[in-house]
Amino acid sequence: MKIHDISMEISEDMPVYKNKEEKKPRIEPTYRIGKFKSNESMLHLDSHTGTHVDAPFHFIQEGTKLNKVPIEKFAGPCIVIDLTDIKKRGIEETDLKNAEIKKNDIVILKTSNSLKEFDFEFVALAESGAKYLISKNIKSVGINSLGIERSQKGYPTHNSLLKNNIIIFEGLELSKIKPGRYFFLCLPLKIKDGDASPARAVLVEGL
Amino acid sequence: MKIHDISMEISEDMPVYKNKEEKKPRIEPTYRIGKFKSNESMLHLDSHTGTHVDAPFHFIQEGTKLNKVPIEKFAGPCIVIDLTDIKKRGIEETDLKNAEIKKNDIVILKTSNSLKEFDFEFVALAESGAKYLISKNIKSVGINSLGIERSQKGYPTHNSLLKNNIIIFEGLELSKIKPGRYFFLCLPLKIKDGDASPARAVLVEGL
Repeated sequence: MKIHDISMEISEDMPVYKNKEEKKPRIEPTYRIGKFKSNESMLHLDSHTGTHVDAPFHFIQEGTKLNKVPIEKFAGPCIVIDLTDIKKRGIEETDLKNAEIKKNDIVILKTSNSLKEFDFEFVALAESGAKYLISKNIKSVGINSLGIERSQKGYPTHNSLLKNNIIIFEGLELSKIKPGRYFFLCLPLKIKDGDASPARAVLVEGL
Repeated sequence: MKIHDISMEISEDMPVYKNKEEKKPRIEPTYRIGKFKSNESMLHLDSHTGTHVDAPFHFIQEGTKLNKVPIEKFAGPCIVIDLTDIKKRGIEETDLKNAEIKKNDIVILKTSNSLKEFDFEFVALAESGAKYLISKNIKSVGINSLGIERSQKGYPTHNSLLKNNIIIFEGLELSKIKPGRYFFLCLPLKIKDGDASPARAVLVEGL
């Protein structure tokens, strides 16, 4: 068994969505050894920091909140699809048609996006791509950008996925990952009435 | 495969260590549907909130920080040991001697503790118990209380475990879990220079 860590490091100078100052993490030391017996901290984190999980409630007012999403949605067989040829446009249905997506798969979109800094022209999932994934009865979907959608009118990608209870993983660090099949896990904090949560994500080989 | 969620729900009224007000989570709505297109939040969390992972740096100044702990430390074969007969005293070496602990196991201590409210007399791991687990070359250790140690002089339980790079999982919700062997996973946020992090924990059957 080999575990690949595909998570972003959380730090005060990490990239955040649209470089918005208010979305930057703040890590506040509360106890430090010397004055105290131990090191402890307060974490001030936007719910969409770094590698994170979107619950239906993020875009759907009546949608399932994070603490009520079944744990099975966050783990399972996955396919990492190579979409690194796409530049500066959305991922459409035609880009996905050749991938061997199985029912209940977690689909991971490996694009040419980098997570080193926020790219305003990041490759996102277009509406036709989202609708195709819904038609394939997938479990969840992930991507290597801080969003799965750029600002589209009516946010059809988020809305259509989340209305169908397809959970979204954003900020996956896939630069060292080869396309293919793995076991995926990304377990969010069980936040009461949560819209999203930062999380650690892994791909497991040989399970 | 069956996944058991053994995580505490994170809410503003959840139990916290010694009921300290400053350790209570605060979940701040930042965007709400109606005024905005989506729901988003800021999470203000003590690094030791609810179900969480302690890195060596929590008690050892030169200890490994959370972002540098190998990912394999957080996942692997585990044994859940029934120690629910112990009341109001520490878990000693003699309490653990009959358990079939294997090298590199993650050892989960199921005690009579409840996570419904903070119990100042919670059952903890005594120094002799910690030293026994170290001698068995375990990988990590977890318990169903917000701490693995009550205030002992010099904190020998934390110090001896963490000096040996044995990672500690606290706040595991084990009330519905039968003793026996499982696959354990509890992946903390990859916090730069972190001492600890809240995390979602699961036990997997049939892997």
